[in-house]
Amino acid sequence: MRACLIIIGNEVLSGRTQDKNLAWLAKELNEIGIRLAEARVIPDNTQVIIDTVGACRKKFAYVFTTGGIGPTHDDITSDAIARAFGVKLERNQEAETILQRHYGKEKLNAARLKMADIPAGASLIRNAVSAAPGFCIENVYVMAGVPAIMQAMFESFKHELKGGAKMLSRAVSAYVTEGAIAERLSAIQDQYPDVEIGSYPLIRQQRLGTCLVARSTDTARLNAAYREIKDLLLSLTQEVAEEDWAA
Amino acid sequence: MRACLIIIGNEVLSGRTQDKNLAWLAKELNEIGIRLAEARVIPDNTQVIIDTVGACRKKFAYVFTTGGIGPTHDDITSDAIARAFGVKLERNQEAETILQRHYGKEKLNAARLKMADIPAGASLIRNAVSAAPGFCIENVYVMAGVPAIMQAMFESFKHELKGGAKMLSRAVSAYVTEGAIAERLSAIQDQYPDVEIGSYPLIRQQRLGTCLVARSTDTARLNAAYREIKDLLLSLTQEVAEEDWAA
Repeated sequence: MRACLIIIGNEVLSGRTQDKNLAWLAKELNEIGIRLAEARVIPDNTQVIIDTVGACRKKFAYVFTTGGIGPTHDDITSDAIARAFGVKLERNQEAETILQRHYGKEKLNAARLKMADIPAGASLIRNAVSAAPGFCIENVYVMAGVPAIMQAMFESFKHELKGGAKMLSRAVSAYVTEGAIAERLSAIQDQYPDVEIGSYPLIRQQRLGTCLVARSTDTARLNAAYREIKDLLLSLTQEVAEEDWAA
Repeated sequence: MRACLIIIGNEVLSGRTQDKNLAWLAKELNEIGIRLAEARVIPDNTQVIIDTVGACRKKFAYVFTTGGIGPTHDDITSDAIARAFGVKLERNQEAETILQRHYGKEKLNAARLKMADIPAGASLIRNAVSAAPGFCIENVYVMAGVPAIMQAMFESFKHELKGGAKMLSRAVSAYVTEGAIAERLSAIQDQYPDVEIGSYPLIRQQRLGTCLVARSTDTARLNAAYREIKDLLLSLTQEVAEEDWAA
């Protein structure tokens, strides 16, 4: 099962805001056996959102979007998604009730009410942090950009997602350079076509090294490949560290 | 002038590595009047690289890629870019000489020599950090993924890029929520269609607020819009902070 994340926001493309949703979502999706296969960062531009969502929802089992569902003029995601699906953007009664409960009648102005405008046929995504809901239409899940809100939204619907086999991974590192191990590592990769072996340069304590990551859905094959990778490093240095965390 | 960044790497999509190149490149490009208009994060997959580069190089004035040009088996970017352009990947004499000087004959093994295989017709991008060059073919600039190396590569060719007007920006923030200002902010946006006004929720010292960013290539219009935005905030609270940095 493959997913795509669409990060919507001029502030990410300008370098103002560092996205933190991709890494978080990637790990959460992997836990339920869905692989993040692509991500796109796009501007607050209706036509670009329409085109990107239109292309990605056909290519991937799941599409997640972050950003652009707030009350201000630059929050255009909901409208663009409605257009991408060729449906109306309409006042959603359930969403309006949620906003009324949260803001009270006095504070629920027209701008905030805009957050109850949802594409026809979409189902709401609960927002336990700040009330204003996201929504899901077909295989597209529309979430807020603020990480704490995005995470709460994802938690509310993740049990509904259908995953496949979880990608398992193990990592090991040493102060040897990639060029010194590349040929033998390639031979291991050839032996284990069902294990994805990644090689990443690292700098730790001002020393240059390499972190090798093995990824597979099969525990036995993963462990076998990992053992060979670790032995390769051990043949060059005694200073080999199993990484606590791999992804 | 619009650019696209293609971030190539399974380690970014798995959540293992947090990309830091997008934000850095966005700011550098803006300094020379080029706007980062889209970014894509894609896996180490030849066909996906071919398709993505093929689509993006037609849509954007400049395409930058990061990742996948090292010596290991998972470094497939150079080969994929050659295929995307329908040219041969061939041993580049200039690149080989650079690697010979850097590694010396003894350490320059076959894996490291692979880094001298460059698409035919491409020009090299100098790497002042670790020697192995990137390359440029037509409007596509292929760089390393390690931020320090990517930055050194970019510095080496940025004077060749042709930019337009630089996007100027100013930012101001206050402890008012987006919903409280959205309607009046929208009216300001309508008055200044040539100024892009972004509204971003912020949490500082555990207080909820909003940061408003005005972006324009015209200083006078930027300042006029900024003044109105600031006045809007000042009409609601005395605690309004001009941000030192905007993007």
